Amino acid sequence: MSDKKPYILLSNDDGIYAPGLAALHTEISKIADVVVVAPDSERSAVGHAITLSDPLRVWDYKKNGDFFGYAVSGTPADCVKIAYWALLERKPDLVISGVNRGSNAGINAIYSGTVSAATEGTILNIPSFAVSLTTYLEPDFSYAAKFAGKMAQHVLENGLPTGTLLNINVPPLPEKEIAGVMVARQGLSQFKEHFDKRVDPNNRIYYWLTGEKIELDQGPDNDDYAIKNNYVSVTPLHYDLTNHSFLTNLKSWNIEK
Amino acid sequence: MSDKKPYILLSNDDGIYAPGLAALHTEISKIADVVVVAPDSERSAVGHAITLSDPLRVWDYKKNGDFFGYAVSGTPADCVKIAYWALLERKPDLVISGVNRGSNAGINAIYSGTVSAATEGTILNIPSFAVSLTTYLEPDFSYAAKFAGKMAQHVLENGLPTGTLLNINVPPLPEKEIAGVMVARQGLSQFKEHFDKRVDPNNRIYYWLTGEKIELDQGPDNDDYAIKNNYVSVTPLHYDLTNHSFLTNLKSWNIEK
Repeated sequence: MSDKKPYILLSNDDGIYAPGLAALHTEISKIADVVVVAPDSERSAVGHAITLSDPLRVWDYKKNGDFFGYAVSGTPADCVKIAYWALLERKPDLVISGVNRGSNAGINAIYSGTVSAATEGTILNIPSFAVSLTTYLEPDFSYAAKFAGKMAQHVLENGLPTGTLLNINVPPLPEKEIAGVMVARQGLSQFKEHFDKRVDPNNRIYYWLTGEKIELDQGPDNDDYAIKNNYVSVTPLHYDLTNHSFLTNLKSWNIEK
Repeated sequence: MSDKKPYILLSNDDGIYAPGLAALHTEISKIADVVVVAPDSERSAVGHAITLSDPLRVWDYKKNGDFFGYAVSGTPADCVKIAYWALLERKPDLVISGVNRGSNAGINAIYSGTVSAATEGTILNIPSFAVSLTTYLEPDFSYAAKFAGKMAQHVLENGLPTGTLLNINVPPLPEKEIAGVMVARQGLSQFKEHFDKRVDPNNRIYYWLTGEKIELDQGPDNDDYAIKNNYVSVTPLHYDLTNHSFLTNLKSWNIEK
């Protein structure tokens, strides 16, 4: 393999067996030397969890007899950490997390393991992005993976500011029906949750969490709006969570010890 | 109980049995009607995880024969969600998460279950804050809990901007040695990780994650700096992760579909 090829780390939260990761691997292998480090099973909605209380196991996952990548008994953030600090021989030029099954637009970014893998890459000063296909129904990852390949080239060429990652969401449409690409802020719509209360065969109560997004943030410049209007959304996120604009006001509270 | 008393939800990530939560409960009960909804076991470093793949169990946890609170088989974010949507009869006036054992200053906020409970309260439009004692060694939670009581009154009086929570960190010192209170931004220091590679009795390899913070962000206006100098840090965070200042630059990339 040529030394000139970029070296790209792929991860996800749907697990190393996920078809979205396979589609991404196929596409990114066309332009880069690829290494996969991904959870050994689905870790959706794990947020930015890391594993401190248990040891991590790592094993080689083969696909059709060939080495495909490292499977890790941990979260997406664990995968990127252990890749960087223990498994890889050199620092990747780029981290891509995905292609996730289901939207990570708007408030979903907070809960997303897919986004957390890209955040972890960013914390390690590696340009990083997450890519998701906004459907659970019979997903066809081909266009989203192709778009990820295009974005990889943009990011390798332009770089990203320190501490900044991209959160990309792709509507589940054939390429010709995609309206375009919208650079968008994170939508702030919320979830209306419902806890479905049930009784198990031993007469114990349990709850299932279900929820639906309430469109409180109408856009038009946010990622939820972009997806709804058939655009790919590209949203720059950062992990400095400070509300800088409130700092001065908060100082005026004159809090004493 | 008087209707005039505020109604305050307490949660944490160290679990319902944790002494930091007990200290907080004692202190906040002096000024409010308190309800506790907390994980049934320690959930540290779970980030903003929520439980979608398993049902949640809830049971009454008694302490010295009295009802203390609801124990939930889920994450801190799950606890606040299920409290709001299924367990409580009315919306709390405030959510307090803590007192956590160990620092949640700086980059730790990203991984923190304690912070995620407060974030979840904020998403539900309830003023919320997280409070942590920055030590693991023989923690004495009394001053941190007392300070939380004082902050509860500040927040009830002043409110917080939409989408904004406070992340409070308290150094492990007697009250007289606390230098004061610093309103601070989130420090951006990073972790240098080490994966301790071991072999189990069956000759299988496993890894323990360990790490130390590298002080890349010297302050003086950040929370890590405040703690190091014996100040309580009060940091306003928000869950709009957008890097707004990079949006215009990103548009100039002219990304095509």
